[in-house]
Amino acid sequence: MSRYMYDLAGADARLRFSPFCWRVTLALVHKGLEFERLAWRFTEKDRLAFTGQEPESSRKVPVLLDTDGTAVSDSLAIFDYLDRTYPGATLIGDGPARGRFMFVRHWSETALAPAILKTVAKDLFDLLDPADQPYFRESREARLGCTIEAFQDRDAGLKQLGQALAPVRALLGEAAFIDGERPGGADYLVFSMLMWGQATSRVDLLSEDQVVADWFARLRQWAEDAGVSCDLARELGAHPGEH
Amino acid sequence: MSRYMYDLAGADARLRFSPFCWRVTLALVHKGLEFERLAWRFTEKDRLAFTGQEPESSRKVPVLLDTDGTAVSDSLAIFDYLDRTYPGATLIGDGPARGRFMFVRHWSETALAPAILKTVAKDLFDLLDPADQPYFRESREARLGCTIEAFQDRDAGLKQLGQALAPVRALLGEAAFIDGERPGGADYLVFSMLMWGQATSRVDLLSEDQVVADWFARLRQWAEDAGVSCDLARELGAHPGEH
Repeated sequence: MSRYMYDLAGADARLRFSPFCWRVTLALVHKGLEFERLAWRFTEKDRLAFTGQEPESSRKVPVLLDTDGTAVSDSLAIFDYLDRTYPGATLIGDGPARGRFMFVRHWSETALAPAILKTVAKDLFDLLDPADQPYFRESREARLGCTIEAFQDRDAGLKQLGQALAPVRALLGEAAFIDGERPGGADYLVFSMLMWGQATSRVDLLSEDQVVADWFARLRQWAEDAGVSCDLARELGAHPGEH
Repeated sequence: MSRYMYDLAGADARLRFSPFCWRVTLALVHKGLEFERLAWRFTEKDRLAFTGQEPESSRKVPVLLDTDGTAVSDSLAIFDYLDRTYPGATLIGDGPARGRFMFVRHWSETALAPAILKTVAKDLFDLLDPADQPYFRESREARLGCTIEAFQDRDAGLKQLGQALAPVRALLGEAAFIDGERPGGADYLVFSMLMWGQATSRVDLLSEDQVVADWFARLRQWAEDAGVSCDLARELGAHPGEH
């Protein structure tokens, strides 16, 4: 049996942009494991029945279906599963390494993600499969308290992103990767959030940030060398609503 | 010979507020070492001649003077020195643990410190020894591009601080300390920045943030149990310019 990762895809199935799925993709590359990414869309809840996620409305990717039939949902549960099952090249680690990993995780979700969403919310919406757009609009607008169109503010978002990235910029001035000489779990957390924005928007989020852009390019190349496509909308020339 | 830590003090010598000195104070407690904190003020450059920091104008605390006469300046150099010399209970660690520690360090300096300074800049100035005030005003105003009085904006600073603390709040909802079950190097980085603001201002920086306030109180108690005074201006009733 092969190893599968259920991965959120846009209208153009080459576009993979979920930060939580990107975490897992890079974690699998980190472990040197073979896997196939299966394109999945928000509305395809029935395809995830095997995961045991109930009720049906709660079914989400990423889901890892391992070679022995083990299914694991939730990106961090998958990190822990991979560290337990394939112990070489630890993703999270124990004690302080784990605590600090969780710090980077919460930082990426509370400081980085809002800045990126502010910059690309409408671009992201436009590249979703039309069948997914109503779900996305409804769920996000309930959270944002306004329409996606009203929420996106490119200039404000880019400014917020530049400020949020200050620690990454400072750190990458001293080291090749966040985790040191080699990429590691903390790198994947940050890369994945940026990939979410870079994959879906025609705007280059890092055009003013050479140090971070170079690190992003190194990690992307590292993933591509392992056979993982890292397509960006602005390179594919993907058009809103395209099939 | 005893072990000494040169520690920046306010007009009231009980007030110790330098975040870089607090890092080292907590690191020494972490290692279970005996030490004495020596009050030092910005203008006392001559007392640091033994450190080899040249020119004289560059002499800064923290400085650790160890029992064998070894002198180490710079908070992170002291962390590394302590880990090398007293290897039990690692402060920084290697590989990913070190990279993530440096992430928390840069985050504390680029996200946390500006928010705290915005909140307490004038309070801090007022509690300095009068001999230190001209140096502080000149060096900080050159950096800020405006007067200390114009820079301080309590409401804006507290709002910025509340936003910056989001990852700490989320993390401490899941664990007793940033570094896990016991306090560690990353906890000291964050605690020290907060202590800088809490020690010098009559405003409670964490009044809206119970989870972080509880963690702060736990760490403060842990330091006090080890014989380290953690006096706050608002508890001492210290008055601006008091001797």
